[in-house]
Amino acid sequence: MADVEEKTQTPAGTQEEELNPDGTPLSDNQKKKRAKAAEKERAKAEKAAKLQQEKATKEANEVDFASQNYGELPLNQSQERHGRTYASLEEVKAENDGKPIYFSARIQTSRTPSSKFVFLTLRYGFHCVQAVLAQAPEQVSKQMTKWAAQLPSETIVQVEGTVSKVAKAIESSTVTAKDAEVKLSKIFVVSKVQPSVPQPFYVDDATRSDAEIEASQSTDRPMPGIPIDLRLDNRILDLRTTTNQAIFRIQHGVSKLFREYLENRDFVELHTPKLQGAATESGASVFKVSYFKGSAFLAQSPQLAKQMAIAADFGKVYEIGPVFRAEDSNTPRHMTEFTGLDLEVAIEEHYHEVLELLGNLFSFLFQELPKRYAREIAIVRKQFPSEDFLVPDQVVKLEFPQAVKMLREAGQEMGDYDDLSTEQERVLGRLVREKYQTDFFMLDKFPTAIRPFYTMPDPKNPNYSNSYDFFMRGQEIMSGAQRVHDADLLEKRMGEVNIPVEAMKEYVEGFRLGCPPHAGGGIGLERVVMFYLGLGNIRRASMFPRDPKRLAP
Amino acid sequence: MADVEEKTQTPAGTQEEELNPDGTPLSDNQKKKRAKAAEKERAKAEKAAKLQQEKATKEANEVDFASQNYGELPLNQSQERHGRTYASLEEVKAENDGKPIYFSARIQTSRTPSSKFVFLTLRYGFHCVQAVLAQAPEQVSKQMTKWAAQLPSETIVQVEGTVSKVAKAIESSTVTAKDAEVKLSKIFVVSKVQPSVPQPFYVDDATRSDAEIEASQSTDRPMPGIPIDLRLDNRILDLRTTTNQAIFRIQHGVSKLFREYLENRDFVELHTPKLQGAATESGASVFKVSYFKGSAFLAQSPQLAKQMAIAADFGKVYEIGPVFRAEDSNTPRHMTEFTGLDLEVAIEEHYHEVLELLGNLFSFLFQELPKRYAREIAIVRKQFPSEDFLVPDQVVKLEFPQAVKMLREAGQEMGDYDDLSTEQERVLGRLVREKYQTDFFMLDKFPTAIRPFYTMPDPKNPNYSNSYDFFMRGQEIMSGAQRVHDADLLEKRMGEVNIPVEAMKEYVEGFRLGCPPHAGGGIGLERVVMFYLGLGNIRRASMFPRDPKRLAP
Repeated sequence: MADVEEKTQTPAGTQEEELNPDGTPLSDNQKKKRAKAAEKERAKAEKAAKLQQEKATKEANEVDFASQNYGELPLNQSQERHGRTYASLEEVKAENDGKPIYFSARIQTSRTPSSKFVFLTLRYGFHCVQAVLAQAPEQVSKQMTKWAAQLPSETIVQVEGTVSKVAKAIESSTVTAKDAEVKLSKIFVVSKVQPSVPQPFYVDDATRSDAEIEASQSTDRPMPGIPIDLRLDNRILDLRTTTNQAIFRIQHGVSKLFREYLENRDFVELHTPKLQGAATESGASVFKVSYFKGSAFLAQSPQLAKQMAIAADFGKVYEIGPVFRAEDSNTPRHMTEFTGLDLEVAIEEHYHEVLELLGNLFSFLFQELPKRYAREIAIVRKQFPSEDFLVPDQVVKLEFPQAVKMLREAGQEMGDYDDLSTEQERVLGRLVREKYQTDFFMLDKFPTAIRPFYTMPDPKNPNYSNSYDFFMRGQEIMSGAQRVHDADLLEKRMGEVNIPVEAMKEYVEGFRLGCPPHAGGGIGLERVVMFYLGLGNIRRASMFPRDPKRLAP
Repeated sequence: MADVEEKTQTPAGTQEEELNPDGTPLSDNQKKKRAKAAEKERAKAEKAAKLQQEKATKEANEVDFASQNYGELPLNQSQERHGRTYASLEEVKAENDGKPIYFSARIQTSRTPSSKFVFLTLRYGFHCVQAVLAQAPEQVSKQMTKWAAQLPSETIVQVEGTVSKVAKAIESSTVTAKDAEVKLSKIFVVSKVQPSVPQPFYVDDATRSDAEIEASQSTDRPMPGIPIDLRLDNRILDLRTTTNQAIFRIQHGVSKLFREYLENRDFVELHTPKLQGAATESGASVFKVSYFKGSAFLAQSPQLAKQMAIAADFGKVYEIGPVFRAEDSNTPRHMTEFTGLDLEVAIEEHYHEVLELLGNLFSFLFQELPKRYAREIAIVRKQFPSEDFLVPDQVVKLEFPQAVKMLREAGQEMGDYDDLSTEQERVLGRLVREKYQTDFFMLDKFPTAIRPFYTMPDPKNPNYSNSYDFFMRGQEIMSGAQRVHDADLLEKRMGEVNIPVEAMKEYVEGFRLGCPPHAGGGIGLERVVMFYLGLGNIRRASMFPRDPKRLAP
C-alpha cells in the first residue's frame, strides 16, 4: 500500500504550473474556481479522516464484549491443569449435530468473505474439518473475527464450538468431514506462527492429487504442484498433510500386522547390533564407522545375527530395525537406510514350511490392511489414486524356470540362470496378474549363481537353490532362502566366492557346534507400503528418507 | 588315558634284573618258576585277545537289528517333506506319562553308567529334559547305545520315545522337567558336532549359579565358573543356556508390553533415521560415518526425530530401535549400542499427563511380567537369584529437592542443583525402598542446569525444569521431560549452552511453523531387563553386546 500512495501523492515543494488541455495557461477565474474546488475537496477529506479517527478511537475505547473468548495463550510451561476433556476431530459429523465440542487443531486455510465471518479449515492428524466464526451478540465480536482472520496457516488453536450438520456436502477436496462443520464460539492460539515466517508451501496445496492440479490449470485458480524435493526439504510441513498422516499410520499397520502374525506363533523378537566388527555379507556397499581408535561397519541386514540366534536355539526369531546400504543408487525405489522386517525359522523338514508361513503372513496382511485401515487408505487414494490390491485366496507360487519361460514367450531375452532386471520384474508382474489375477506372488528356486553364498543349493540340481523372492505389483519386496547350516559346506561356498573365512569367523564357528536347518527372509517395510499404496517413490513411504544426497531433516 | 597307560607300561629294551625283596638275586629255580608263570600269563593274554577279536568280528558281522533306529541323517537340503508333527519339550511331564513323543533337541550332557544304558540330557529353548536309551530286544541294540554314547555335547538329534513319569524328582539343577523323562526308542543326528572341535565350555556348566559353583569347590566334583568374557567371545554357545533362553524371552516381553500399552492408546510407531547429517544433541559421544564423499553421524537417540514427528502432528509416537553412544565407558551398565524404547506425546495442558502415562506404563509392565513370564523368571532366578521386584499399587513420585534432602540426611554431601552420582542413585534407591517399599520410583523436577537445552524450565522457578528420571533398584532406567516447543526460546537456550543453531536448522525451523507442547522419555530396554532380573551386568541383557572393546560376534 505504501508504494501505491507515494505514486498518487504529489511530492511536496515541486508544485507544477497547471495548464489548459490545449496548452494555454489558466485564466485567473479558472484558477479561483480550481482553488475553491480544491479547498472543498480538502475540507471533505479532512472531515472523513476525522470521522475515521473518531471511529477508530471509539472502537479502541469500546469494551470488547468477546475479549475472554479469544487471544494468544501464554507459552505452555505446564502452569495449570484443568483436566478438561479434549475431543478428536472425528467427532465433527452429522450425527453429533448440536453437540458442544472442544479441541486443538491447526489452521489449514482461512477465508473472510465479509468482516462478519471467518471460514477456517482446521486439521489434525488425518482429519480436516470446516469451521465458521461468525459475529454474534455477546459471544463473537467484530474485533474477534478481525483477529481470527489474520491468523496464519499452521497456527495451532484451541477452539470451542458446536458441531453443526450441513445441508449440502462440503465440496473442498482437502476437507475430510463432509456432512458437518463447527460453529466456533471461542478460539485461542496455543502455538503461534509469525506472519513474517515464509511458508515454503501450503499444506492445503500439498494435499491435492496430480489430476486435480492438472485440471485446475485451465481455470482462473490454477493450483501449484509441490515438487518432492521441496516437500522433503520441508518434511515437517509436508508430513502434516492428511495424506501423509494416513500413509504413516498404514506403515505402522504393516509392521503391526507383521508382528501380530509372528507373535501369535511364538516368535522371539531380536535387537541385534548394527555396529559390526567386519564388513560382512558382501564387501561392497557397507558404511564404515570410526570406532574409538579403530573402525566398525554398519550392518547391511540382520542376516548373520538372526542366523546366529538360530544357531543359539531361539528357533523362531524376527527383527524390525534399520538396515544400511552404501549403494550410490539414486532411484525411486532405493534408500541408504530403510526398515527391515526380518525373520528366521529353524525348520524340521523342508524350507517350504517357512515359504508357506511367509505366504500366509502376506495373505493376512492383505486381508487385514483394507479392513483395519479403510479410512486411511481412502484418504491416501484421494491424492494417490490406486486400484484395489488384488490377491486371490490361494497365494500364487511360481518356480524360476516357469518365470523365464513366461518372459521368453513375452519376447524377453534371458539366459536360464540370469537375474531378472527391474524391467523384467515389471513385465513378469503384468503377466502373472493377467494369468492369475494377483498383485502378489512368490517366485521360488532362484539360480544358485545369483544368490548369496549362504544360500542352500537345491538337493537335486545344484544350479538352482532353495531361495525365493516375493513381488508386489511387479516389484521385489522380499528375498529369502534356506541357509547353509553346515560349517564345512559354508566354508566351501565362501571359498568359491572368495570371501575370507577369517572375516566371519564367529559366524562360521557358530555352525561348527551344531545348527538346526533353517530358512528365512527379509522384507523392505517402505517397499511394501509404497507398492501397496502406489506411491511411485519410496521416499513417500519413509518419514525422513535417506539417500546418497539426503541426510536431513 | 594315553598318559596313564604309558606310565604303567615298562618301556621296551630297558628290562631290569629282578631281585628278591631282601635284595639278593633270584635262584635258577626261582627264575624258571617265574618264566613258567610269565609264559602262562602270555598264553592267557593271547587267548583273551583272540577271543576279543573273534567277538569284535562277530559283532561286526552281526546283523544290527536296530540299524533303522539310529544314525546320522543326510544334510538337510529340504529333500523330503513328511509333514510329521514335532513336539515341544514342554510335553515331557508326568501328566503325559506313557505318551509317545517325537522332537528335536541338543545333547547337553551324556552319561554311560554301563554299556546297556545311555543317560542324556536334551535341551531346546528354555527346556531341558532327561532321556534314557536302554538296550531292548528288537528296538535298541548294543551297537545303538554304543553309538549314542559317543555323540558330543551340542549335537542336534531327532528322537522318538515315550514320556515316562519318574518316581523321584530329578535332582540335576540344569534339568527343567522334574517329574518325567523320555524313554528313547530312536535317535538320529540332524546336525553333527565333530568330537575334535574344541568346546570353550559346556552349556551345562554355563547354566549354574555362582552359589552352586562355590559350594561344589569343596566336593570331589568341583564345577568350573565361566567368566563373562569367555561367554561373550563364544556367545552363540552361551546363549544356548536355559537361563539365556529365558532372559531374551523376558527382554522380548518388556518391549512387547511397552508396545501393547501404547498401541492400546493409539500411538503411532516410528522408524526414524539413524544416519544424521550433523552431530546433534551434544557434540561429543557421536559416532562418525563415512557417507559417500562426505560424513554422517549415528543418532544418539531418536530425540530430535520424534519431536519433529510431534511438530508434524502425529500426536502420540513411539519408537523401538538402536541408539548409539560413542562414550568410552567400560562399566557394567554402559554399552555403545543399546535398544531405546522412546515415546513422545503432544500434551493438552500439563506434562504430568505424560509422566502419569509413563508411570502407568511401568505399573502395567511390573504387573504383567511376573504373570506372563513366570516360568522364564523362575529359570533365570535359578542362576541369578533375585528378590521379587517390589512395586506398590500407587507409583511413588518424588521431587528433586526431596531427594536431595533425603540424601543429605543420610550423610551425602551435595549442592541443590548437583546431578546425582551413581553411588547417590543407589543410596537414594535404598532410602526410597525403606520408606515406600518400592523398587521403582519417579523423580520429577530436575535442576535445569543438568538437563539438555531442549528441556522446558519450570514456570515458577527457572532453576528447576519439567523433567524426570525413573529408577529401578536404585539405578536410572529412563529420562524424560517436557520439551521447549517454541523456536525463539529454543534458540535462546541453544545460545546459552553454545550450540550453533545452524547445525540443527531443520529442527528449530520445524517449531517455527507451530508445534504443540509436548513431553516424552527414553527407556533403556537392556537396563530394565538387567535391573528387573538382577543380572549385575548389562551385557547379560543384550544378545550381542557392543562396548568400546567389543564388536563381535
